[in-house]
Amino acid sequence: MSEPPLIGAIEAGGTKMVCAVGHTWREVRDAPVHVVPTTTPDETMSRVLDWFAARHAQTPLRALGVASFGPIDFDADAIAATTPKEQWRGFRWRRAIAERFGDLPLGYDTDTDAAGVAEWRWGAAQGRDVSVYVTVGTGIGGGLVINGVPVHGLLHPELGHIYVPRQAGDDFAGSCPSHGDCLEGLASGEAIAQRWHRTGPELPADHPAWDLESSYLALAVVNVAMIASPQVMVLGGGVMAVGGLLERVRDKVRTAVNGYLPREELRGHVDHYLVAPGLGSSSGVIGAFALGRRALDASLAPSA
Amino acid sequence: MSEPPLIGAIEAGGTKMVCAVGHTWREVRDAPVHVVPTTTPDETMSRVLDWFAARHAQTPLRALGVASFGPIDFDADAIAATTPKEQWRGFRWRRAIAERFGDLPLGYDTDTDAAGVAEWRWGAAQGRDVSVYVTVGTGIGGGLVINGVPVHGLLHPELGHIYVPRQAGDDFAGSCPSHGDCLEGLASGEAIAQRWHRTGPELPADHPAWDLESSYLALAVVNVAMIASPQVMVLGGGVMAVGGLLERVRDKVRTAVNGYLPREELRGHVDHYLVAPGLGSSSGVIGAFALGRRALDASLAPSA
Repeated sequence: MSEPPLIGAIEAGGTKMVCAVGHTWREVRDAPVHVVPTTTPDETMSRVLDWFAARHAQTPLRALGVASFGPIDFDADAIAATTPKEQWRGFRWRRAIAERFGDLPLGYDTDTDAAGVAEWRWGAAQGRDVSVYVTVGTGIGGGLVINGVPVHGLLHPELGHIYVPRQAGDDFAGSCPSHGDCLEGLASGEAIAQRWHRTGPELPADHPAWDLESSYLALAVVNVAMIASPQVMVLGGGVMAVGGLLERVRDKVRTAVNGYLPREELRGHVDHYLVAPGLGSSSGVIGAFALGRRALDASLAPSA
Repeated sequence: MSEPPLIGAIEAGGTKMVCAVGHTWREVRDAPVHVVPTTTPDETMSRVLDWFAARHAQTPLRALGVASFGPIDFDADAIAATTPKEQWRGFRWRRAIAERFGDLPLGYDTDTDAAGVAEWRWGAAQGRDVSVYVTVGTGIGGGLVINGVPVHGLLHPELGHIYVPRQAGDDFAGSCPSHGDCLEGLASGEAIAQRWHRTGPELPADHPAWDLESSYLALAVVNVAMIASPQVMVLGGGVMAVGGLLERVRDKVRTAVNGYLPREELRGHVDHYLVAPGLGSSSGVIGAFALGRRALDASLAPSA
């Protein structure tokens, strides 16, 4: 059996770009990644693409996949003008990569859509018709994956920007530049840092921050469950990785749903409903690999 | 060309059952409907099924479709034990209809899923990959339709039971028996009646009730847009039919999104995004027709 094609994967975040290559998702998971800080598009992209060009010179890449911060305007094929990353407004992945790699097949989607696809194919959402991946990190985002395909619809989900009830006694104005006290404004890593003047990992487990954080995230989970009815929700990101938070969210979801949906996943078995990523912190870069591989397969399919 | 098969349609609501027959959706829309009050299952169903039996004796029905209140436990093939309609807990559509009509093909789904399918096929959501139908009446519900198929996932969406921020000065406890001040508890027809001691249609257009109502509904619309990213949302139901409410909701959605999603549907063209049902108040019964027709087609398809 011949070796599968080599795919390049870029997880493009607001603070760093994580780059990897692999023939399989396991290789991507286990490969040493190359990390480039996200600064200006010119500087960042030349460093990112130099690295892939060096890999490409050794063994030709057959496709690239990008899991990118957003919002992404798929119609315009560009990072949306409303991204808080001002220098990246209007940035075009397709054009930037074509300038260096010509017509190398490229697949790109949001970071959370990509991670959702990876969790569906190889992680904690395998076999589920409807799944949601949420990341709680510096920002909050999420993707809805139905039968393995990320739902785009009008644009793509922007789950961090829902509104949830403010908890009693919380008078923090909220950190979202667009919405103030939307979920991201109240419960993202940035919100935690602004509210408590410490980062999540610096706050002790018994700090009141965690009661508040888990309350907001539980309300978000309930809203997602009531609107999109996923069979599983994968909760990833740096804030979610703080010890004990997932368990607190589970407890509060059970209380908030109050038995209304007759499914054990929202009652006794909420630990099977709200789960950590099966791919650990690699869902995004493995998702980028999946997008690249899918773009390659599409490029090889006989045209209609 | 032969006449299409005759299909029976039941829109099963908490206060009444709307029954119709037709060969086409237009016939169902235009046919005189038969209305039976929803009391006990025995009493209601014998009256409903007597009526269909009389139609069946004239021209044989080829299938029945039911658009039912919920929650529905599809795995158990029954109305869920958590429905507020206590006498209907555990009621089985399939069994009740089989007792009178044998193996007549039956399609059933929630009322909002059915209405969503009808609006997608023949109404205001035609041609959209991702659409949402919301009803604001005695209760609040909604269905998510992707490529014409209602998303069930864990159970089915229960959009009325999301949590949204309470508006300043609103100290009404909420009317939802399960959740208190979820969206349904704050903004359903029942909530309006409990809060203002008058029904929606009795409240004048300049009553503060409408400012509050439109605020809650706008927050719900934003949450749906951010989680499921529909290309259109159809807003139906008795409360939504009150003059001026849809326009108020549109204004507040534009403000709440604050330009974040780079789509004109959520900026200048929100009147193309938040729309009244194309099928008027008939979405539910026409949806039941669509479910019946789909069940017939499935019964005729060669088995795998």
